[in-house]
Formats: sequence, C-alpha cells, structure tokens
Amino acid sequence: MELLGSRAKAASTEIARAPAAAKNKALLNLAKSLRKNTAALEAANQRDLERAKTAGLAGPLLDRLKLTPKIIDTVAQGCEQLAAMADVIGDIIGMKEQPSGIRVGQMRVPIGVFGMIYESRPNVTIEAASLAIKSGNACILRGGSEAIESNKALAALVQQALADADLPPDAVLLVPTTDREAVGQLIAMPQYVDVIIPRGGKGLIERISRDAKVPVIKHLDGNCHVYVDDPCDMEMAFKVVENAKTQKYSPCNAAESLLVARSIATGFLIHMGAIFAAKGVEMRCDEESAKILRSDGLPDACVKDATEQDWYEEYLAPIISIKVVDGIDEAIAHINHYSSHHTDAILTRDHMHAQRFLREVDSASVMVNASTRFADGFEFGLGAEIGISTDKFHARGPVGIEGLTSLKYVVLGQGEVRS
Amino acid sequence: MELLGSRAKAASTEIARAPAAAKNKALLNLAKSLRKNTAALEAANQRDLERAKTAGLAGPLLDRLKLTPKIIDTVAQGCEQLAAMADVIGDIIGMKEQPSGIRVGQMRVPIGVFGMIYESRPNVTIEAASLAIKSGNACILRGGSEAIESNKALAALVQQALADADLPPDAVLLVPTTDREAVGQLIAMPQYVDVIIPRGGKGLIERISRDAKVPVIKHLDGNCHVYVDDPCDMEMAFKVVENAKTQKYSPCNAAESLLVARSIATGFLIHMGAIFAAKGVEMRCDEESAKILRSDGLPDACVKDATEQDWYEEYLAPIISIKVVDGIDEAIAHINHYSSHHTDAILTRDHMHAQRFLREVDSASVMVNASTRFADGFEFGLGAEIGISTDKFHARGPVGIEGLTSLKYVVLGQGEVRS
Repeated sequence: MELLGSRAKAASTEIARAPAAAKNKALLNLAKSLRKNTAALEAANQRDLERAKTAGLAGPLLDRLKLTPKIIDTVAQGCEQLAAMADVIGDIIGMKEQPSGIRVGQMRVPIGVFGMIYESRPNVTIEAASLAIKSGNACILRGGSEAIESNKALAALVQQALADADLPPDAVLLVPTTDREAVGQLIAMPQYVDVIIPRGGKGLIERISRDAKVPVIKHLDGNCHVYVDDPCDMEMAFKVVENAKTQKYSPCNAAESLLVARSIATGFLIHMGAIFAAKGVEMRCDEESAKILRSDGLPDACVKDATEQDWYEEYLAPIISIKVVDGIDEAIAHINHYSSHHTDAILTRDHMHAQRFLREVDSASVMVNASTRFADGFEFGLGAEIGISTDKFHARGPVGIEGLTSLKYVVLGQGEVRS
Repeated sequence: MELLGSRAKAASTEIARAPAAAKNKALLNLAKSLRKNTAALEAANQRDLERAKTAGLAGPLLDRLKLTPKIIDTVAQGCEQLAAMADVIGDIIGMKEQPSGIRVGQMRVPIGVFGMIYESRPNVTIEAASLAIKSGNACILRGGSEAIESNKALAALVQQALADADLPPDAVLLVPTTDREAVGQLIAMPQYVDVIIPRGGKGLIERISRDAKVPVIKHLDGNCHVYVDDPCDMEMAFKVVENAKTQKYSPCNAAESLLVARSIATGFLIHMGAIFAAKGVEMRCDEESAKILRSDGLPDACVKDATEQDWYEEYLAPIISIKVVDGIDEAIAHINHYSSHHTDAILTRDHMHAQRFLREVDSASVMVNASTRFADGFEFGLGAEIGISTDKFHARGPVGIEGLTSLKYVVLGQGEVRS
C-alpha cells in the first residue's frame, strides 16, 4: 500500500497540472474503450459472478455485481458527459485589489489523492476514475472483493486511456488484493492520501470514520422528512409526499417521516393514508395521526403505533412514520432533533414559513415544495456525483467535482512589501 | 465538559438563526464594555502576571500574557470592524433552475460549535468570541492556564454583551478549569463540537490533530520560499526579499528560503548578501551560492554551508537558506518537495513563469511579485482571521468568517416530483 500511495502521489502532481484537453481526451478514450471491450468486461465479470454464486451470494447482491452491456454503455456515456463539462481546475474567483495594492483571489485546484472504498457494483470503478481524471486528482480504488476481476479489467482500460492521452496511468490505481488489511492501510496514509470517500452501509462508514487518519467525506443515513404545513396546496402535497416515499424505497433521499400541521391533519391524512394503504406502505403513527387514520377504517396492518425509535429510523422500505405537529415551530424542532441532517422538505404556501424552514432546518439539503428524491448530484446540476456528504465540513450534500477540489489563495503584486 | 458541550450546542441553534442586527449589537456592546472595564481587566490580568512571575515564566511569555489598555482598545476596534462587515449567514449563491423545474442553490450557514485551544495571549479570547458571534456559531474556548483570570474576566464581558443583545450567553463558553484533561475531552465530543481550531506551537497542533475525533483546522509550520526568476526587476527583488525575510522574523509568513535562477545569481546575490549581512541575517547556502557570496568577501559568520535539513527548516529567526536553481522547473520542484505548503512567492517579469508558479506550486498562498508577509487574513481582505490553515480540506490559507461556515443546498420547487 505504501508503494501504491507513493505512485498515486507522484501521479497526482502530474495530473493536477494537465491541460483540460488531455483530461477530456482520456475520458473520451475511456468511453470508446469501454464500448469496444464490452465482451471482455463481461467475461471478467462472469468470473466474479461464478465465484459469487459458488460462495452463495444472495440474489440482490448478484444483481448489483452484474456488468451488462447497458450498464457499460451508461458509464461510457457518463465519461462523455464529464468530458463535455467545463473544466473548473484553475478557475480564479473573487480577485480583488486590497488597500496594499496586491490583488488577492482564490484558484480552484485538485485536492491531490483520494481513496475510495466501495462495495459490489463494479461501475463505481469507472465513476470514481472518471471523476478523478476530470478533477485533476489521482485516486486509489478499493472495490469489493467479490468484484475484483471486473474491477481489474476496468482499471486496465482506465490506465490505457490515460496513457493514450499522455497522462500518468498511476493517476488511477486499483488495490489489486482483496485482503481486509489493505483498507486499514489505505485510510491511514496521510502522507499519500488526502481524503477518503467510503460508499457502502452505515457500519462500513462508521468504522472507516473512526479509524481514518485523513478526512473522510462520509455519507451516513438519510432519515428524510416531509412537513405538510398549513396553508398548503393539498393536491400538490398528495403528489409530492407519494413521490418522496414511494417512487423508490431504497434510496437515501426517500422520505421516512411525515409531519402534518394539526389544523389540516384530518383532511390530509385521510386521503394520504388511503394512497399509502393502496401501495402497501405501513404507517407508524403518533397517537393523534393513528386516531385519524383508524377512524377512517384503515386496517390494523397499515396503521401501527410508533415507538420513540421510529422517529430516528431510516427504513429504506415501504414504511413511514407519521406525526401531527402544532405547526412550523414544532416541525423544525422535531426535524432538527430526529433528522439525520440529510434532506428535509416543507410543503407550504406561506412565504415566511418557507424562509424559516430553509434557514433553520440544519440539513444538507432543505427543500420547499419539492420531493426529497431530488437530493442528488445530477438533479442538482453538478454533472456527476462522487457521494453525498452528511457532514458540514468541506462538502455538504451531493458532492461533485468541486468537492474534490480546494481553493488556494493567489496574490498578484507589482513589488508590494508589508509595512 | 459534557455539560459545556451540550450548553454550547443548544446555544448554537439559537445564534445560528439570530438576525444580523442582534449579532452586530452584541459586538458593539462588547466593544463598549471592553473599553469601560479596562481597569478591571488589567486588574485580573495583573493576578495572572503575578502568578506567572512567581512561576518563573520567561520575559517574552510575560509580554504575550500582558493586557494593556492599547491591546484592549485594539480588540474593541476589531469588534467594531466585525460589526460593520456585511453578514454572510443566509447568503444564497448559485441559484439555478434545473431541467426538472426545481431551482437549486447553496445557502451559507454556521458550522455549529467550534472549539478553540490557544496559549498565553488573552486577546485571542475576544478575537475568537467576536468571530463566533459574527459567524453565528457557538464556541468553547480553552485558553492557556497562565491566562485564566484574564480570560474569565473577558468571557464574562462577552456573555453580558450577548445577553444585552437578547442572544444566548452560552454561545461563548470558556473552559473554567486549567486541567489538561479538559483539552482531551473537548477534542473528542463530536456530538457537541463540529471543529477544533488550535493555535500554538507545532507540537500542540500535531498532538491535537492526532487525538481529535472531530475535524481540525490546523496551522503547522510556514517554511515560505521566495524564488527570484530570470527575467526579474532586480530593484524590486532586493526590496521584496528583504521585506519577506527581515520585516519581522517570528511570523509564519516570513521567508525562510531563497531560490535564485542561475543566470542572474551572481549579480543578485552579491547585492542581496550585503543587505542580509548588514542586518545580521545568517545565510545557509548551497555550494554555488556560498561560492558567490564568499567571493564577495562576506565574513564566514554570515555565510554557512546548508545541510539537507536546512531546506525543511522554519527558522523564525535571522537565518535564511539560499540555493541556486536552473530556473522555474527546478524552483517549483524544490518548493513542492521542501515547502510546508504555507506561502511561496515568485519574483519575475515572465508571464508564463508567473502562471506556471501560481498553478503548479501546491501551497495555500502563492504569490507573484509580492512579499510572503502578506499571507494574512486582514491583508487578504477577509476582515478577520481565526487562523491560517495549512490543510487542503475545507479551508486553506487564512481562515476568516467563511471558514467557520458551510454551504447547504436549498431547493425551491412548485410541487415537482422525481420521475
């Protein structure tokens, strides 16, 4: 790992100063090469799949491991989209003349080397590699051991694409072994690695955050709330709450908890409850919302009593917790207490309530009259996403190219001295 | 410490949503109160000074500990300047409509609670407190044990100024004990403290960075370089190099190493060496520069042979290392290898060299034709400085109000859902 680290570090200074044209050429090379080598990639992936089947991996995990021509084409398109994006490296912002005569601004530069630790999906290898290339960083990738053959085949294509664009192949390095010690070493080399980005379950991320000797861009859970305020457009609220909860159950930006202002609770919940019940969504309710929903004759299988733990829960399943609140004050207080600070939304027609919610809810993404499902790098217009940060330090919310950069000060003078 | 942490956390949500007017009122209250209570502050400081003298503290440390009416007036002025600055909390930047119809931007918000660990100078208590108030953060301050009486007196004035502006006094808390365990606890409470800012010697900062369980804005050493390029305005170079090295020896942004392009080395060094010799600056030279300087008859006391360690050294003293280099390539390579990535400057008339230096030197502040002594929050126009970061993560270089904030995403919709 020491050797990988020093190779990545050396490559990082080269790719940091590479012209935008060379980085874009590498990305287009890679897209072409992914499409051209689809059969070979499928063959490597097949070896992983067979090993995984023998090891008794569960069906959903096998699905995530699988590299299909469609997936390969999608990541190739991602590379082409990145190549088409403007290059942010070298941007200078805020250049202003100071009283001393010097002009001071900030230049956007790559962070250096990032380490990425992820599980099964081999397409993450290309997503991470292409973001590293575009952002002028080097990276060290540690994919899941079950995907090692696929990842090796993909990484070889990346390195060739770099070489063909006269960029250092070591800018994207794959940890070639599957032993667990490698992870521990990767997260404890501040001399070579500037930041670690783990993607995976909460347990993995907590473990890495605890043990890392370098900063971690961490994405913990998404206990996302929708608060239905009074006054609110009810038709919009039915549509947005349904989308936030049921459009997909597994993403971190799906709603897990619904708060409803008391003054509109009965009318709203009776209709909303019917929508949830029809879709088989279990409702875990406080006393007040339970009473409303039960009075409407919803079956006991649909309406359960919430426990204290439910307010903290990220279900990632057809379950939602529901609570009636006094109004905006109680909603904000509840969210700031129980939310995981990922994404929370208010549905309202009241301008002052909207402003207060945006300002006072302490979450990475705060929304007015939109589905929490929009909390995503592509939907936010970042062009790409390396992860979502639930931290406040450095990057918060969906992390794109800029999250992999830092700003250094540039000073332009004409011989000024300090007096 | 747990109790201090939870009090600060509770206050942080209040001060985060405080109107700019209330924060500015607290700052003006504080300025007035500092001036009004100068005699009482001096009396408290006197108790610290007497204890320190009894304990045998060295003269320079006693100087740093001393609170004079002039120092008190300066920090009061600092509070007034902060009050006059525009408030950045709540700023929304980059609001753009996305293809889905939602509008996405980023709002600047306080980080939450910062912990500050510092040594002797009691004026840092007011600098940190006033920055916390302006930036809408709460803070927990741990000053040097030798300044405990002064710090208690200052913190009491801060809390009164907050209360008189209807802001929570707990937004600025001083650790009231001087035991060392308190530091260990302060840096290991991620549930209450969002970031730690240590100010002090390299040993302190390394220790805190190693043990902290929260992010640290760290300022390690400043091994700053000036590279005199060819072509260069020699009169400017003499003036800027002299200023960078000799205007003050102790600041972290003073130059510690001088690189000179070979083609202009003889002419430049003979004159520059005379300036240094006249000021008693010891020159630690590579073979080539030593030969030039000795041929000019400079005494042996002034011109020493540099060891490998000299290229890494932050002297903070009338000593400078000097090396002749081939040109821009060797200068950049040398700096990226030996520099502490704090501040480095090129003196040149060559536009391409200037551009390459700015882009390729991997330091927090990179300068063209200006003295490294300008690397400072006030000189950079930040209005205030909580520290200087030699890290790349989150904040880099002088850290002002913005370094104590983060950007959260705000989404404004009209009922959009994800498809």
